[in-house]
Amino acid sequence: MERFEIAVIPGDGIGTEVMPEALRVLEAAGSRYGVEFAFRDFDWSCERYKRTGRMMPEDGIEQLRGHDAILLGAVGYPGVPDHVSLWGLLIPIRREFDQYVNLRPVRLLPGLTPPVRDASPGDIDFWVVRENSEGEYSMLGGRQGEGTPGEMVMQASVFTRRGTDRILRYAFEFARRNRRSLVTSATKSNGIYHSMPYWDERFHAIAEEYPDLSTEQEHIDILTAKFVLRPRHFDVVVGSNLFGDILSDLGPGVTGTIGVAPSANIDPEHRHPSMFEPVHGSAPDIAGRGVANPIGQIWSAAMMLDHLGAAEAGAGVLAAVESVLASADAPLTPDLGGTARTADLGGAVAAAVAA
Amino acid sequence: MERFEIAVIPGDGIGTEVMPEALRVLEAAGSRYGVEFAFRDFDWSCERYKRTGRMMPEDGIEQLRGHDAILLGAVGYPGVPDHVSLWGLLIPIRREFDQYVNLRPVRLLPGLTPPVRDASPGDIDFWVVRENSEGEYSMLGGRQGEGTPGEMVMQASVFTRRGTDRILRYAFEFARRNRRSLVTSATKSNGIYHSMPYWDERFHAIAEEYPDLSTEQEHIDILTAKFVLRPRHFDVVVGSNLFGDILSDLGPGVTGTIGVAPSANIDPEHRHPSMFEPVHGSAPDIAGRGVANPIGQIWSAAMMLDHLGAAEAGAGVLAAVESVLASADAPLTPDLGGTARTADLGGAVAAAVAA
Ligand SMILES: CC(C)[C@H](C(=O)O)[C@@H](O)C(=O)O
Ligand SMILES: CC(C)[C@H](C(=O)O)[C@@H](O)C(=O)O
Repeated sequence: MERFEIAVIPGDGIGTEVMPEALRVLEAAGSRYGVEFAFRDFDWSCERYKRTGRMMPEDGIEQLRGHDAILLGAVGYPGVPDHVSLWGLLIPIRREFDQYVNLRPVRLLPGLTPPVRDASPGDIDFWVVRENSEGEYSMLGGRQGEGTPGEMVMQASVFTRRGTDRILRYAFEFARRNRRSLVTSATKSNGIYHSMPYWDERFHAIAEEYPDLSTEQEHIDILTAKFVLRPRHFDVVVGSNLFGDILSDLGPGVTGTIGVAPSANIDPEHRHPSMFEPVHGSAPDIAGRGVANPIGQIWSAAMMLDHLGAAEAGAGVLAAVESVLASADAPLTPDLGGTARTADLGGAVAAAVAA
Repeated sequence: MERFEIAVIPGDGIGTEVMPEALRVLEAAGSRYGVEFAFRDFDWSCERYKRTGRMMPEDGIEQLRGHDAILLGAVGYPGVPDHVSLWGLLIPIRREFDQYVNLRPVRLLPGLTPPVRDASPGDIDFWVVRENSEGEYSMLGGRQGEGTPGEMVMQASVFTRRGTDRILRYAFEFARRNRRSLVTSATKSNGIYHSMPYWDERFHAIAEEYPDLSTEQEHIDILTAKFVLRPRHFDVVVGSNLFGDILSDLGPGVTGTIGVAPSANIDPEHRHPSMFEPVHGSAPDIAGRGVANPIGQIWSAAMMLDHLGAAEAGAGVLAAVESVLASADAPLTPDLGGTARTADLGGAVAAAVAA
């Protein structure tokens, strides 16, 4: 029996509410498909920051290193500035483990009520491949003239050849492997003078290695409009750290809720543990009430199974999610228009996995 | 009779097709409301670039300086890299004339078929106030190690105290003047380490001067999702150059088409001519066929009238647009689901203005 050591970081807010549901579903999948898990819990969070002044211990990365994968809930808490909490936990993990791909499916699941008209399940079905290690998320920069009228802040973005090429190549390989025919590049080379023309240049260079795939590039402004006007058009959309971030919230928004959307922070070379987390945040506005949608966390766990090579179990979890959402008496959480609680929906998925 | 000197730059692609319709509507508004226009035409464009190596002559800015306003079509052309054409014309005009506000209404007009469900005209009605002079659109940066595996590009964004404060203050003043009660700030301070926390800091500081207005801030990723999920929520949304750019395409996308959306590049202090242009681009895919939607250009002309103080004429043009679009036999262009031509729709609006 395969056995995986999983580091579990529930984090803050609804992260701590949806995580138990994902673990329950994983246990069910384990029994059904013959996979064993050892979960190790880490209380790294804003709560911890308030107590200790650190989001995670100084040797946090080392503590995670031996695991097969990391399952993360959500990080963020009123009172702790976001850039403190995120650069103290989420972003260092992504970088230290060189999880340079952030892979995010956008799919209209059954049971969702999309804000767009005339869409039925299966209709909207594409992937956002987001660069996850450099780009606009950068600590390079600073402030000058603090407190004076001449005060200014400079913020650098960094696009390396290595970083750009590897994410573009991943997107093309992913498209080929999954029989997706169109790769769309998100750019803004008409306004952002240095980095985006370079992104385009590399996109065209890498595209030449994949003559069997179609390509297009769209400026991010009009691309967001097209996500709403013709979401059925897309297959694989590749973007920088920031553009991928935006598109992978907007895409699920177009399907009706970001509460169901998963993400995988992947080191495709399997040198380090990869990390799986829902797209949604810690949602302080609904935290503590037990009504958060656990599907984003559960689907993230399914992506983890895929990544670990337990593809049958991963597919089983996703099929269970779809069958529960499609059933007439699905216990839907409030964001899906229902009145069920987090544990009702999580329990239903776990039962469907086992069945 | 008031008389305005208007610099007219049709530009490229459909810019040259929609501009004549805007001029026709302006003439009609002039006769009706007692305003006179002297239009001076400039052939600055990618076409000109191909002939002369420059988008505009070296003294282009000087040639424009004496005018009361600038009406621009669209710039961009296959074969001329976008960053060459835009940084050779549009962006220098915005900057040399310190048009630091880019004001863009998002309104569901009658006759539009929005991709979102259950929306009727008037429902979606808000404004994007975009910073237009600095931020992510910057020529600071460059490439190192060209052609080597260590190649990298650095791109700087610049946020000055002066630039940040003046756009935020404009947004609050605009909200107060127009009885809008909510100002939403677009940020990404959880990921972009220096510039966005600074943006938040200034937003909170300026907000204190406007205790009568409500405020909120949203990270750009989830904000784009909310544009789709609850577009009725917004009143005034203020963002950086890039975020404002994205939101002001997405917003009109949510109303059904960006073909109708106008924009005003404003120097609020009236030291320099302001510039009015549709949000859409030169659209090489449909250029030359006479089917482009002229409403974005016409509505931009209406915003120009407002800015020039000819408010009655401006309101008259917008009312004409709304009444034409609302009429049962409106000559709608293909993007609106009809079969009419650019000149049919422009002519109908001109006739409605005169009536
Ligand atoms: C053409 C481009 C440079 C421009 C911009 O990004 O400012 C356009 O998208 C706009 O919104 O006016
Ligand atoms: C919380 C934030 C830093 C993060 C990001 O922008 O990467 C989140 O929005 C995401 O998409 O994973």
